[in-house]
Amino acid sequence: MGAVTRAAVLGASGYGGGELVRLLEVHPAIEVTFLGAKDSAGMTLGASHPHLARTSRGADVLQPIDVEAVVAAADLVFSALPNGSSSPLAPALLDAGVQVIDLAGDFRLPADRYPIWYGFEHPAPGWLDEAVYGLPELFAGRIAGAKLVANPGCYPTPTILGLAPLLTAGLVEPGPVRVDGKTGISGAGRSAVEAMSFSATEDSVRPYRVPAHQHTPEMEHGLALATGIDVTVLFVPHLVPTVRGVLTTTYAPLGAAVTTEQLVACLEAAYGSEPFVRVLAPGEMADSKRTRGTNVVELQAVADPRTGTAVMVGAVDNLVKGAAGQAIQNANLMLGLAQTTGLETTAVYP
Amino acid sequence: MGAVTRAAVLGASGYGGGELVRLLEVHPAIEVTFLGAKDSAGMTLGASHPHLARTSRGADVLQPIDVEAVVAAADLVFSALPNGSSSPLAPALLDAGVQVIDLAGDFRLPADRYPIWYGFEHPAPGWLDEAVYGLPELFAGRIAGAKLVANPGCYPTPTILGLAPLLTAGLVEPGPVRVDGKTGISGAGRSAVEAMSFSATEDSVRPYRVPAHQHTPEMEHGLALATGIDVTVLFVPHLVPTVRGVLTTTYAPLGAAVTTEQLVACLEAAYGSEPFVRVLAPGEMADSKRTRGTNVVELQAVADPRTGTAVMVGAVDNLVKGAAGQAIQNANLMLGLAQTTGLETTAVYP
Amino acid sequence: MGAVTRAAVLGASGYGGGELVRLLEVHPAIEVTFLGAKDSAGMTLGASHPHLARTSRGADVLQPIDVEAVVAAADLVFSALPNGSSSPLAPALLDAGVQVIDLAGDFRLPADRYPIWYGFEHPAPGWLDEAVYGLPELFAGRIAGAKLVANPGCYPTPTILGLAPLLTAGLVEPGPVRVDGKTGISGAGRSAVEAMSFSATEDSVRPYRVPAHQHTPEMEHGLALATGIDVTVLFVPHLVPTVRGVLTTTYAPLGAAVTTEQLVACLEAAYGSEPFVRVLAPGEMADSKRTRGTNVVELQAVADPRTGTAVMVGAVDNLVKGAAGQAIQNANLMLGLAQTTGLETTAVYP
Amino acid sequence: MGAVTRAAVLGASGYGGGELVRLLEVHPAIEVTFLGAKDSAGMTLGASHPHLARTSRGADVLQPIDVEAVVAAADLVFSALPNGSSSPLAPALLDAGVQVIDLAGDFRLPADRYPIWYGFEHPAPGWLDEAVYGLPELFAGRIAGAKLVANPGCYPTPTILGLAPLLTAGLVEPGPVRVDGKTGISGAGRSAVEAMSFSATEDSVRPYRVPAHQHTPEMEHGLALATGIDVTVLFVPHLVPTVRGVLTTTYAPLGAAVTTEQLVACLEAAYGSEPFVRVLAPGEMADSKRTRGTNVVELQAVADPRTGTAVMVGAVDNLVKGAAGQAIQNANLMLGLAQTTGLETTAVYP
Repeated sequence: MGAVTRAAVLGASGYGGGELVRLLEVHPAIEVTFLGAKDSAGMTLGASHPHLARTSRGADVLQPIDVEAVVAAADLVFSALPNGSSSPLAPALLDAGVQVIDLAGDFRLPADRYPIWYGFEHPAPGWLDEAVYGLPELFAGRIAGAKLVANPGCYPTPTILGLAPLLTAGLVEPGPVRVDGKTGISGAGRSAVEAMSFSATEDSVRPYRVPAHQHTPEMEHGLALATGIDVTVLFVPHLVPTVRGVLTTTYAPLGAAVTTEQLVACLEAAYGSEPFVRVLAPGEMADSKRTRGTNVVELQAVADPRTGTAVMVGAVDNLVKGAAGQAIQNANLMLGLAQTTGLETTAVYP
Repeated sequence: MGAVTRAAVLGASGYGGGELVRLLEVHPAIEVTFLGAKDSAGMTLGASHPHLARTSRGADVLQPIDVEAVVAAADLVFSALPNGSSSPLAPALLDAGVQVIDLAGDFRLPADRYPIWYGFEHPAPGWLDEAVYGLPELFAGRIAGAKLVANPGCYPTPTILGLAPLLTAGLVEPGPVRVDGKTGISGAGRSAVEAMSFSATEDSVRPYRVPAHQHTPEMEHGLALATGIDVTVLFVPHLVPTVRGVLTTTYAPLGAAVTTEQLVACLEAAYGSEPFVRVLAPGEMADSKRTRGTNVVELQAVADPRTGTAVMVGAVDNLVKGAAGQAIQNANLMLGLAQTTGLETTAVYP
Repeated sequence: MGAVTRAAVLGASGYGGGELVRLLEVHPAIEVTFLGAKDSAGMTLGASHPHLARTSRGADVLQPIDVEAVVAAADLVFSALPNGSSSPLAPALLDAGVQVIDLAGDFRLPADRYPIWYGFEHPAPGWLDEAVYGLPELFAGRIAGAKLVANPGCYPTPTILGLAPLLTAGLVEPGPVRVDGKTGISGAGRSAVEAMSFSATEDSVRPYRVPAHQHTPEMEHGLALATGIDVTVLFVPHLVPTVRGVLTTTYAPLGAAVTTEQLVACLEAAYGSEPFVRVLAPGEMADSKRTRGTNVVELQAVADPRTGTAVMVGAVDNLVKGAAGQAIQNANLMLGLAQTTGLETTAVYP
Repeated sequence: MGAVTRAAVLGASGYGGGELVRLLEVHPAIEVTFLGAKDSAGMTLGASHPHLARTSRGADVLQPIDVEAVVAAADLVFSALPNGSSSPLAPALLDAGVQVIDLAGDFRLPADRYPIWYGFEHPAPGWLDEAVYGLPELFAGRIAGAKLVANPGCYPTPTILGLAPLLTAGLVEPGPVRVDGKTGISGAGRSAVEAMSFSATEDSVRPYRVPAHQHTPEMEHGLALATGIDVTVLFVPHLVPTVRGVLTTTYAPLGAAVTTEQLVACLEAAYGSEPFVRVLAPGEMADSKRTRGTNVVELQAVADPRTGTAVMVGAVDNLVKGAAGQAIQNANLMLGLAQTTGLETTAVYP
């Protein structure tokens, strides 16, 4: 066993932070040495996350997020803070030589999109050029050398992975793309909100934030990065009564005479050797439940020549491949480890 | 109070049949005088549906489906039998002067679509011309004089209601339409199937029958009937872990310079006096849970000029406005009653 | 149709208040003329409860709870305010000649229990003697003449109904009784609490407030009122991931040589003519889902001579027979109407 | 790393079998070399359990259960076959020198209980004396030397663990014990049964098999084995709408003047060094969700002197500590490994 990297988890009291701690508990080469929190500073990890109470490794008390303390304790920072919180903080960490993986949206877009989609002027636009968009199946090389990784959003991950190879191969034509998203409630974060209560959520299906969800420009930007092709995306997210799981159904213009078999073959060619991608055979249907607790993404593609549509379905666990698991996959690349290190778990099913 | 119509419910042991009985228990002008079933014949209603055990009104034992017995007992037949079961049966009932409302797909389409989408040759194509497509908000006049009503499917109901006025008004252009459907598990019927078990369904989101669902041609045909415009529909249904509730999200080509306000105003003009349609104001989001147990449909419309897309969201309780409630609404029209008779219930929420 | 009683609903923004409005919408002899709320005063009913938005009958804007305004508008008050809020308010309403049905715990217990179990000194102990405990199947006569009715709690309702006849008949012996309760999340009220979020609740079963739940003395007091026998109750409530539904499993000392058949026969004799009680035959199992949206209570009894235990299982919808429905049943008795007036609904199942 | 033991999983197509495979995928010292199934023989593991499709380790095709083939392939057998299937099979395996861990009830009871509680005469009563009841926290020594381990049932596991130390210490008196169980639907196994469908289960709480559940005598026998004290148990199980998780609430006679603190201290003394037992401090409440996917058991104890009752609450994941995880814990003991080998996972929460 080689050296163990000391890591900080900022935003440790949220779902993303808790998931990072859960997954890193079995990681052989990364140790959590600092737990940072805002409102929950001073609590033990077990008080904040009872299911993590037995943790004996690493840090145990949530600390205020002080840059000097973080730098002293860690060589790598996972920031699971809310949107808008990491961009004022990251430059000082980076300047001190710490590598940063940001799970929020703060480093995913060009600067001019922030006022429109996030509602703030970006405080550190210079770092946006340094940031690497952390979708390992598409950008592994750049991630390996990155100081700052922008970990993708939960919805963009399966959407971009499903669409990019088909765009590049010309099986899908570059017209407007409509993405219909379905997410579990944990995607809304850990919070006390009546609309996310069990009473309001059981037997409820509802769209939200239409058509202004901030993952819209991320899908456009990620697709452009991956393919060099500009597509315009409409994204309509829906809340469904699950806890984990994101499933996106993408409708794009189908190339002439393209078949389901061609779409699937293209995805298999792109991802055949990727350890976390499960390309479904024609006729198989994706199921978000099969990804629960794991870093797996399921990809399904169907051609509908009647309407000239390519349908791509992608499913991930929003807290793992859609957040903490992908962040660790990125960390593995940055540290020169195998991508799967610490992530070889199987879905807890049923 | 005028005369009471004697009604038969065929397929009484299923979810649709049970819902017809539930709703008709409080109907002042329709009495259930015959309960027909195939495999469950001989059972009491209470044995088949324990929640209906206290019913004292009308028939109580499920009978074999014998045409003579049905004709002797009833003037109106609600058939909630599976697809393919009512078309061989209905002609004899109709010839005997009984009015028929069919909740299956047997009389919804032109004859040439049955082999393709339902897998059988239609046994009574002559009756297809007589059948009226029973979407009361669009075809009330024809329904009022019908002998045979084809009660619409759960998915087509909110989809056609949301799209037809916009097509007619030219706010949406007649290009390919993509419909993303989400349904509760009761839509799969009452049956013992592992894939519909609680264990397989909790925390699961999954598409099914893509792109060959039989509601696809029904949407196309219903839109053509309502608007005279031919559109091609791609329909991608998904199972989500709810029991009741269908929500469809429809993506159609937006007319030039059309706004959300125009879309909503058009729906309000079309349905402002309809008792069961709730058109949502701009910014409001549909929620299937608010329709539970009621005949209400919620309609939401959003324009996205960035991608040239009109988004229509529609939500119904698949067993009520998507099946039994709409059937009773149709019966009310056929019997010259107010549409709302027996249907004035409010959603059981939360 | 006789006269219509004008009724106020206080606490109209909560789940209990919403359920009162839902049920009273179809009540032929009670009209809601005043909606009272604390924090939500000024909102429309539809803004507070979107599923009630189409309501055209009666009051529509939530008003501050001013005694004079209530007295001017209503002859009967349903108070669905939180525990501790109705006892300071009720005396003025009663003094003005308004009848009051209190859905909270403020008038259910002897005065000396309030500091212990509710944490406050009762502000109107004189009215505790006037208050009638509103369990219609046991106390219909007293309710009919009451000015002030203490509407029972959700857990005590099925527990007392199941146990009282068996105690009176001597089939159960008066030793300690253990009651294991399971409730849906709506029992916790309408609020933004992380522990009641969908994320924290799906797949979770957990006890709470053990052994100090305030329904403990209510069960003891209600049983003493009904039977004249003092029993000591331990009550252990659990949260389970349902929205509606309370199921209590009661363990009491079984009389010598008593059989399941005797227990069931005793319940049938007690409740055979009661419209809302469904006594299950030996071998049948209760199911809270079958009561959803209705005023029905299911009662099941099993003798276990091996351990000398009588097991009584009772199931209700906590918002209907456990709250709003029972309140209306009480109002019907107070107004000289049939108990079932406005309550003849069937469960929304599945 | 020492030698790797070759293991067979019989009943690999069920939930218990799937969970064994899931957990053993990361076990460093046990390799699955044989997958046995009855009806599913011939299928690949991925066809039977799609979430296990990426498994590359060990056996991949389900084989008919042929003793010779099993003996040739494996040194250790985990049998997750249904009740009544392993007892005719195990003797031949044992005679051939293979160690057997049986997850069914076939080796848990004295021979005379089988006709009464399981409905069959035991076919191999001689092996019942050899079988060791596999509750590692109580019987680790005997398990270490066992050829045949009877892996405990899901309900008895938390019940016996919670009660045994208190009985031994005299804090609980040996009178009748009532156990109220709540289980997730996966406890009913993987099957197509209408009563376990999502439609019938959402929002449903219901008892079942009262008072004749076969875990009743197992609790009595296990407690007698652990304490030497005979107690009579009434067990009332309930289905609640979760997939995983068993929570048992046990009501037993409290010793005079015993406090909650004494109960908790006794449990802490008994299990303080046990890696999988989480004893909750006074006031903390158990939650089955926190055990999901892990081998942890949560134990909570409360004294209620008012009614002379000791309340013990225990929670496990029925498929892990209540089945497959505990079986692996037993295997670890039998193989001389640390109990936690391959089981160091943290709950997937939320």
